[in-house]
Amino acid sequence: MASSAPRGRRPGSPDTRSAILAAARAAFAAKGFAGASVRGIAADAGVDASLVHHYFGTKDDLFLAALELPVDPREVLGPALAAGVDGAGERMLRVFLSVWDDPELRLPLLGVVRGIVDSDGHRLMREGFLPVVLEPVGLALGIDRPDVRMPLVASQVFGLIVMRYVMQVEPIASMPADDVVAIYAPTLQRYLSGPLP
Amino acid sequence: MASSAPRGRRPGSPDTRSAILAAARAAFAAKGFAGASVRGIAADAGVDASLVHHYFGTKDDLFLAALELPVDPREVLGPALAAGVDGAGERMLRVFLSVWDDPELRLPLLGVVRGIVDSDGHRLMREGFLPVVLEPVGLALGIDRPDVRMPLVASQVFGLIVMRYVMQVEPIASMPADDVVAIYAPTLQRYLSGPLP
Repeated sequence: MASSAPRGRRPGSPDTRSAILAAARAAFAAKGFAGASVRGIAADAGVDASLVHHYFGTKDDLFLAALELPVDPREVLGPALAAGVDGAGERMLRVFLSVWDDPELRLPLLGVVRGIVDSDGHRLMREGFLPVVLEPVGLALGIDRPDVRMPLVASQVFGLIVMRYVMQVEPIASMPADDVVAIYAPTLQRYLSGPLP
Repeated sequence: MASSAPRGRRPGSPDTRSAILAAARAAFAAKGFAGASVRGIAADAGVDASLVHHYFGTKDDLFLAALELPVDPREVLGPALAAGVDGAGERMLRVFLSVWDDPELRLPLLGVVRGIVDSDGHRLMREGFLPVVLEPVGLALGIDRPDVRMPLVASQVFGLIVMRYVMQVEPIASMPADDVVAIYAPTLQRYLSGPLP
């Protein structure tokens, strides 16, 4: 979708962009994704709402920019989802590993994870990451009860990320990607398409 | 084991106890569990090593006191492990849930989890929690390759804790314990006794 226009890279005054991002972070943390508005964020930053859209695109895009993710999860996960739910656990896991195992992406991603455990950060994740990222993933896969299944997937992916990349617990930290897939893909697949209580 | 003597509750000068705990935290974070010594911690706190043992028991006990866990995981998990590996995933999960679902324990446990993502905290967990808590659990269960299996279990338990108690992501946050068990116990059981690559 409009991948020819690199999101969040449009030219503009660095000060204005920073002011908008700071206002967005504060608003999303205080009001949640649904409660914050682009108009309100623009007012807080002292700019016109049209400028926010010009710099950052949609409210979803602005949210992802505020999270400071070094990649757009909607873009990197897209191909893994296109083939449907069969095998999606493994394909999604391989995407996560390829992103996290990239040394240039790992440091900024670690910053995002550290931010999650402070109260603003986890409100951002709970009320923004889920509707902006996880729910569309569930919809793209066409699974039943995506509102239950996607948080289950997130619970295992997050725990894996903490062990492998944040705490660097062995043997998970140094495990070849294929072994990580052999262990965790069946878990993700069960959460995506297995029985639920 | 010596459960008649309430650990970490022996009388003593609060200042001396605090000084020992502060020295222990600094030493475990800087040198890891294996690298820190009770003798060195005593010296840093300006007391005799025998006083450390008197107040806190073994080095393992001192480590758990330094983590400020509100319960001793070795004690609460003991009965879940005694019956062996069959069904241990479910029994361990029920222990975790009963501890975390206790309102008096949750707040201090949340403090421990928040501490994990700062660099001292995750070094404490990586180099102390694993040898002091996870490895004995694996040994008590008599599983093969406990050094691989227990970190896998920890990766799912930690992700579940973050979703249910830290970020409070729905529907996981409000899910009845029996539903959490139905979803997660098979995952833990597979990590404990299923095939490994």
